[in-house]
Amino acid sequence: MLQGVRLTVAYDGTDFAGWQAQRAQRTVQDELERAIRTMAKHESRVRGAGRTDAGVHALGQVAAFDTERAIPPDGWRDGLNALLPGDAVVRDAAACAPGYEPRFDALDKTYRYTLHVAHAPNPLVRRTAWHVPRRWRLRETDPARALDLDAMRDAARRLEGTHDFRAFRAADDERLATTRTLFEVAVLDRFEGDPERVAIEVRGTAFLKQMVRILVGTLVEIGSGRRAAQDIDTLLREDATRALAGPTAPPHGLVLVRVTLGRKSADAPTPTL
Amino acid sequence: MLQGVRLTVAYDGTDFAGWQAQRAQRTVQDELERAIRTMAKHESRVRGAGRTDAGVHALGQVAAFDTERAIPPDGWRDGLNALLPGDAVVRDAAACAPGYEPRFDALDKTYRYTLHVAHAPNPLVRRTAWHVPRRWRLRETDPARALDLDAMRDAARRLEGTHDFRAFRAADDERLATTRTLFEVAVLDRFEGDPERVAIEVRGTAFLKQMVRILVGTLVEIGSGRRAAQDIDTLLREDATRALAGPTAPPHGLVLVRVTLGRKSADAPTPTL
Repeated sequence: MLQGVRLTVAYDGTDFAGWQAQRAQRTVQDELERAIRTMAKHESRVRGAGRTDAGVHALGQVAAFDTERAIPPDGWRDGLNALLPGDAVVRDAAACAPGYEPRFDALDKTYRYTLHVAHAPNPLVRRTAWHVPRRWRLRETDPARALDLDAMRDAARRLEGTHDFRAFRAADDERLATTRTLFEVAVLDRFEGDPERVAIEVRGTAFLKQMVRILVGTLVEIGSGRRAAQDIDTLLREDATRALAGPTAPPHGLVLVRVTLGRKSADAPTPTL
Repeated sequence: MLQGVRLTVAYDGTDFAGWQAQRAQRTVQDELERAIRTMAKHESRVRGAGRTDAGVHALGQVAAFDTERAIPPDGWRDGLNALLPGDAVVRDAAACAPGYEPRFDALDKTYRYTLHVAHAPNPLVRRTAWHVPRRWRLRETDPARALDLDAMRDAARRLEGTHDFRAFRAADDERLATTRTLFEVAVLDRFEGDPERVAIEVRGTAFLKQMVRILVGTLVEIGSGRRAAQDIDTLLREDATRALAGPTAPPHGLVLVRVTLGRKSADAPTPTL
């Protein structure tokens, strides 16, 4: 009997050309499909909740596939992990309906971008945080802080809600609809207890290409005093363009933290195993 | 005029054969001496506060060298970082007396060992935490906890103080004096806010070869119910041997967090620059 399996997948994006299968490039989808083929003894297409760019990490990407093979979810998790390379891991597996499409069931996604603000880099976080040298500090409210977090939080509040984010997308993104809703943009001080790290968490329904990284690049410009928080209002107008927003932050600071799933996920039948 | 420079050094130990220079192996000391030679235009021996084994990381290793070159400390920091590879970084530089020996000035050292306790590994912490699969759990006080942290804390308290740690050293360590003082052994739940990570922090004056890793291997046996916390008392007796203690935990979970320096460090003269 055909069964669906839903996976929660984590990966270190450093050595991947992103999530989606591409010819002659190493991707997470390819690695998963290869491992599933070995276990299932048949081809299976993996359907993700969304793409991530090259170099971007994930802790809670969601993916689903269908199989004829009767293996319990924990068996899929442990078996796939034995076949996968160390930089991609199945964190959890659950039964779902065959054909289940995480992309259409995702209520929202949370991305986190980590900044490491210090004179010198920290080699233990260099793969997952963007090193923003302290000399970027032009305006400073607290000597211990190299970024003006109050200004960044002011800007973050302006980004929340439903807006036209056309200025915050890659120049080659040609989608016509550019209105998106951000439920929350949070600037977290002392991330993981580290006084040198600042995290920016963004939760929304859907995102334009490189949207979070351009938001972060703009917030860092605001935090380092090179532009004002009120600039955000101008950037959210319908006549704004990509050139007006800040630079695209590098991919390695970004993590897809979680995907909140909707009703279809909960309705998944218990498989007969 | 000959001047001393004291460095605080961080490194990702993954691709290093440890701190100390060794023929035909990549070590942190070698990389530092190479970078200093390029900047100083002369050979300079780097004196560390202590060795770390292959694969062990550092956030606050201390090292010193002497130079004729008049460069301010921040210049050494930024210049060396431009020359060093990304996995070794000078976090801070300060002036010190020529000939200053961090090894003899270290009052104590703090090591931290991170465990990742979960069914599946986390690719984003796999270089800095030891994955302890949840199936190791044999005894469990709290369903959310895969390790019995109360038992580990009981054992940790027994380790604190001045004891003969001969059972907790590598079999090939032949030092005659095996008495050491541990000021603190702390078992930290939810390390960096992550419910899956447990950190063990150990602060002491000096350590035997692989001592922290053998302590951790033994604490994990206690936490997973395979031995009792009271076993520690037996292991600290003078007739104990290496074979009685637990396994040596792998190096990649260990970080030299900080070295507390004594009076000589504070007495360092301000250099003429």
